[in-house]
Amino acid sequence: MTETAPSQLQRILAAVQPLDAPAMVAARLREDQLTKPRGSLGRLEELAVQLAGITAQALPRFLDKAVLVFAADHGVAREGVSAYPQEVTGQMVLNFLAGGAAINVLARQAGARVIVADFGVASDLPAHPELRVCKLRGGTSNFAHEPAMTIAEAVACVEAGARIVDEEAAHGLDLIATGDMGIGNTTASSAIVAAMCGASAAQVTGLGTGIDPTGWSHKVQVIQSAIEALRPDPADPLDVLAKVGGFEIAGLAGAMLAAAGHRIPVVIDGFISGAAALIAVSLCPALQPYLIAAHTSVEVGHRLTLERLGLTPLLNLDLRLGEGTGAAMAMHLVDDSVALLREMATFQSAGVADRDD
Amino acid sequence: MTETAPSQLQRILAAVQPLDAPAMVAARLREDQLTKPRGSLGRLEELAVQLAGITAQALPRFLDKAVLVFAADHGVAREGVSAYPQEVTGQMVLNFLAGGAAINVLARQAGARVIVADFGVASDLPAHPELRVCKLRGGTSNFAHEPAMTIAEAVACVEAGARIVDEEAAHGLDLIATGDMGIGNTTASSAIVAAMCGASAAQVTGLGTGIDPTGWSHKVQVIQSAIEALRPDPADPLDVLAKVGGFEIAGLAGAMLAAAGHRIPVVIDGFISGAAALIAVSLCPALQPYLIAAHTSVEVGHRLTLERLGLTPLLNLDLRLGEGTGAAMAMHLVDDSVALLREMATFQSAGVADRDD
Repeated sequence: MTETAPSQLQRILAAVQPLDAPAMVAARLREDQLTKPRGSLGRLEELAVQLAGITAQALPRFLDKAVLVFAADHGVAREGVSAYPQEVTGQMVLNFLAGGAAINVLARQAGARVIVADFGVASDLPAHPELRVCKLRGGTSNFAHEPAMTIAEAVACVEAGARIVDEEAAHGLDLIATGDMGIGNTTASSAIVAAMCGASAAQVTGLGTGIDPTGWSHKVQVIQSAIEALRPDPADPLDVLAKVGGFEIAGLAGAMLAAAGHRIPVVIDGFISGAAALIAVSLCPALQPYLIAAHTSVEVGHRLTLERLGLTPLLNLDLRLGEGTGAAMAMHLVDDSVALLREMATFQSAGVADRDD
Repeated sequence: MTETAPSQLQRILAAVQPLDAPAMVAARLREDQLTKPRGSLGRLEELAVQLAGITAQALPRFLDKAVLVFAADHGVAREGVSAYPQEVTGQMVLNFLAGGAAINVLARQAGARVIVADFGVASDLPAHPELRVCKLRGGTSNFAHEPAMTIAEAVACVEAGARIVDEEAAHGLDLIATGDMGIGNTTASSAIVAAMCGASAAQVTGLGTGIDPTGWSHKVQVIQSAIEALRPDPADPLDVLAKVGGFEIAGLAGAMLAAAGHRIPVVIDGFISGAAALIAVSLCPALQPYLIAAHTSVEVGHRLTLERLGLTPLLNLDLRLGEGTGAAMAMHLVDDSVALLREMATFQSAGVADRDD
């Protein structure tokens, strides 16, 4: 934490409280009375108990779910680190608003809304009633040459992400999944993870949307050089975020923190959400138990990220799309876990014999 | 295959045809036009292509899903191999019919019906409009002393399981998950897997519903002694099924085969469904591509079973409940995979730039 952090950010961090122990005890006791061998639902039981602790409800349920898809462009894309041209970021935002992207389909399947926000897309997007605009400028600076953004910009994006969740929470939002769009954002995420974990760029850099081995070597070199030149300080997450991060990554960190402050569970998607979570948990360690890791991404740096976060993902489907797609699918399991807790019969109510011991 | 196999079984086996190549090619082509980097949806893309091949439809969808829960008792339970008393099998069947078991909750979450069948429960169950009765007798013989059933009984149960799917398919059933209930059935399944894979009982025996280490040693010894005494022939799956199997396991094998014959995908649950699949695939290798492995069970023999079946499970949630619970959860992913194929925009329709190459 820098000493000059503004009071708004301080308020966001201070709102995150420990999980509610009485609700967790009540949920655990109920799990043990349901008509199944104790523990036989494995991770679904742990998940239900965690959700009880997050929501401070012994029998949680989720009636207003949303996938947050935050989009922004990255100056570092000018280094040729992606297989796709930069205009795809804005085109995909329009695709999200039209309902045609993978995340739209998967959110519908999960009964969740999609909330799309422009945190700094390079192209000018037409006004749209469903598009939140949190844009400081049309993409970060190229961190191959200078810091991606100022500390003040980083803080402003964290606060803007938090504000979206604050507004939605006031209208009943009770479960979020985090998603991202931004050509070049696996490069920023690899740089964040390398800086925060003290790893080399090669250890945490993958193929993104599909570069070839030559492209990969170049991407690694861009990241490694930037870290050596800018020296982001792992003890100061805002410094890392500002030097090698992205506007949408800052926004996601803010959304995660605000959700926890409202006792809303956060299903984090893949590598970009993981990088945002590393920043957010470093700002506020009390956030960690509010996070649910959806899946293990193909991106090589994601495993180290999850390890550092102390999270075990629910799914392993070899995804590498982003947008919140893995998180939307994991929402099914979140719903399943609490439906089991609420709806299953107990040994007593069903007249089923418990084990002999 | 024994030479005396009745013609009904032969008909069931002969109905299983290869996957439909044109539908798979069409689905693959469409996956590559959707607004995402090619292959970025990982296993969801492979799954959608497989489902196209199974159903012979380029854009499959599933509108009438069912979880089949087949229940039966096991003579070998008299050897004290389970943590629960035998009457639990019948009590749980009543719980299924009342809608209070884990599988009822998870099937509702997945939009699937639960079809419950009594393949040989020890207790007398009251008639119920939703209970299918396929009961030859109230549980298998104790394979610690004699074969669990005759070859004729094994064939009759396979055929009865197939008949349930035949009847439902005539009314529109288009996706099944397989589930089981039977105190003692992990013991039968370990014996089947040991016999079919040439493994020792110790390699493929787990803790079932929750026995202690002493109970485990005893369970291993019961299985190993039975295999040495009865010498089930791995080249003759009906021999293995009859000597150390179970009535519900035979029924599940029949249901899987009949489903494939109707081009209905089969989501197999955990260890008991896996043992049934080993028998069914051995009877008819063409069945294999119709199977979708839902999850990796905690039961130690399940990994070897999946390896032998050549299947990679979708979920790893440390489940050990049975009933079809993991398969019901995997149905979400089956639905997700085909919804993506049907509903996503293409690069062309959305006006999104494809990659440069």
